Amino acid sequence: MSANVIGVDMGGTKILSAVIDAEGNILGTAKVPTKADKGASEVIDRIARCVQKAIDKSGVASDSIQAIGIGAPGPLDPATGVVIFAPNLGWRDVPLKTELETRTGFPTFVDNDVNVGTLGEHVFGAGQGVQNVVGIFVGTGIGGGIILQGELFHGASKTAGEIGHIIVKAGGPRCGCGTRGCLEAIASRTAMTKQFRKAILKKGQKSVLSELTNGDLGVIRSGVLAKAIRLNDKLTLKVFKKVTKYLGIGIGSIVNFLNPEMIVLGGGVVEALDDTFLDDIRAAAKKYSLPNTLDGVQIVPAKLGDNSAILGAAALARQRSEVV
Amino acid sequence: MSANVIGVDMGGTKILSAVIDAEGNILGTAKVPTKADKGASEVIDRIARCVQKAIDKSGVASDSIQAIGIGAPGPLDPATGVVIFAPNLGWRDVPLKTELETRTGFPTFVDNDVNVGTLGEHVFGAGQGVQNVVGIFVGTGIGGGIILQGELFHGASKTAGEIGHIIVKAGGPRCGCGTRGCLEAIASRTAMTKQFRKAILKKGQKSVLSELTNGDLGVIRSGVLAKAIRLNDKLTLKVFKKVTKYLGIGIGSIVNFLNPEMIVLGGGVVEALDDTFLDDIRAAAKKYSLPNTLDGVQIVPAKLGDNSAILGAAALARQRSEVV
Repeated sequence: MSANVIGVDMGGTKILSAVIDAEGNILGTAKVPTKADKGASEVIDRIARCVQKAIDKSGVASDSIQAIGIGAPGPLDPATGVVIFAPNLGWRDVPLKTELETRTGFPTFVDNDVNVGTLGEHVFGAGQGVQNVVGIFVGTGIGGGIILQGELFHGASKTAGEIGHIIVKAGGPRCGCGTRGCLEAIASRTAMTKQFRKAILKKGQKSVLSELTNGDLGVIRSGVLAKAIRLNDKLTLKVFKKVTKYLGIGIGSIVNFLNPEMIVLGGGVVEALDDTFLDDIRAAAKKYSLPNTLDGVQIVPAKLGDNSAILGAAALARQRSEVV
Repeated sequence: MSANVIGVDMGGTKILSAVIDAEGNILGTAKVPTKADKGASEVIDRIARCVQKAIDKSGVASDSIQAIGIGAPGPLDPATGVVIFAPNLGWRDVPLKTELETRTGFPTFVDNDVNVGTLGEHVFGAGQGVQNVVGIFVGTGIGGGIILQGELFHGASKTAGEIGHIIVKAGGPRCGCGTRGCLEAIASRTAMTKQFRKAILKKGQKSVLSELTNGDLGVIRSGVLAKAIRLNDKLTLKVFKKVTKYLGIGIGSIVNFLNPEMIVLGGGVVEALDDTFLDDIRAAAKKYSLPNTLDGVQIVPAKLGDNSAILGAAALARQRSEVV
């Protein structure tokens, strides 16, 4: 029970790992670039090195490590630990679990990055002690995870929690998934960026975003959005009004359908903004859910920030290695 | 284990009750009018009488009855058995469970009618042996229930399963709940009737529905819709095309979000139509769900028809009295 575990957050550009004790204390961390272009085998070598670095920095003995947990991108099979498809890594059917076990000797457990983030919030963050939690992470896309009766719920095709692809406006904006009107196609940072570009570049609307991005509206970071809102930028406020409305509609649908005890909102866009944004989302969710259905449902901000994935991966390692 | 239970289906116009054995065999049934206008106390007397009639008809001994289960309308508290609000009965805060226990002497368990219908399909119908099932019942409205790990899931406010109020088209048709674009506002029989009336009465479109309803387009029954489809009525086919599309969108959202192993489709509208309708819904669901997410999900018709509620109520009685 007092053994340590490793939590790994594997992203497209960097790998983060941490040694974490049973109380969720981070005893040592390490970071290495992913270098996905060098191929899966090299990336897995780098993960193993990153894990070893974190152990070295923490000063704990290797034999105190019980297991490794990893949050990885893309559809994957949490049972076999095979990453089925991760376009931003160029991976197809990579047996991440077994490859990493061979390299490190530690039992390894793999799950989807947003699932792991939701688990982190459940075990160590905003959702502690709450049995049924839905995590919604708004960033480049919109991802999510579902905790039911205290455990990650994967569903029949292991794809549960694709909150970004709840359809909120049939016939609405085209989504990356091929259909139209998904929540992600309206309320993600990518969708917002499209709306800003259209308003500024095509319609010639004025906005501080032009200055704040030095005219490069290709990728607008969450911090820049936060600044534009603090400066009361009309265009940014208008786009955010739409975003809160649609997040409220998505949350309303979830509240009406699953009625979880808690919805945890995280991700770059949510973190960058102040409490007013969250209040607006709560108000929108109330408007779009049935009377009384929201009574027992808390809508709260994520607490762990960038650490949600490593802490969730650690929780995953602990939960699953104790079951075995 | 071999004891019998009573399943009661309490509707706005009639009360059905049945004695049901452990294998789901119906040993005797009874039916009495609800007469809601006479007040809650009289209605509960009538339920008690209906229960006694079913016992008499079944020929089993009263002391073989383990418990009563009831599917009741309206938001209710399944723990206390209090019906919070049932507009079609004129009920507010009626302690159905305790009142019926006083009258009959049998332990009584109450749940929402569509929840009970979903449980019936899970225990005795289409969803046997499937752990995670979503039931969708399309009739006057659209209701639903969620079975997770083999048990009814109620959610934080006891309102889980309000599938009719998933928002599929923001800004769409006004829904009875006050918002716009709910699935129920587009794909229920009530919504279809509105579309037929508008097309025929306001736009003067021709349709066999005018004859089949003798010009009374106020309430169009499912059987009439089925007939109009068999007759290849252009307007009916057009409205149904829209309905299947939107049911597909709602199911797509559920598949993307919760990814259950099975979706059971029942209710008057679904039962009245042939397999082509179900195939169309399946095709629409495939279009509106992410690639591969539908792979593990079966979309099947309900099997129990009008008996889903009494059988589900019996299953409820058995499950909950065995836990106690």
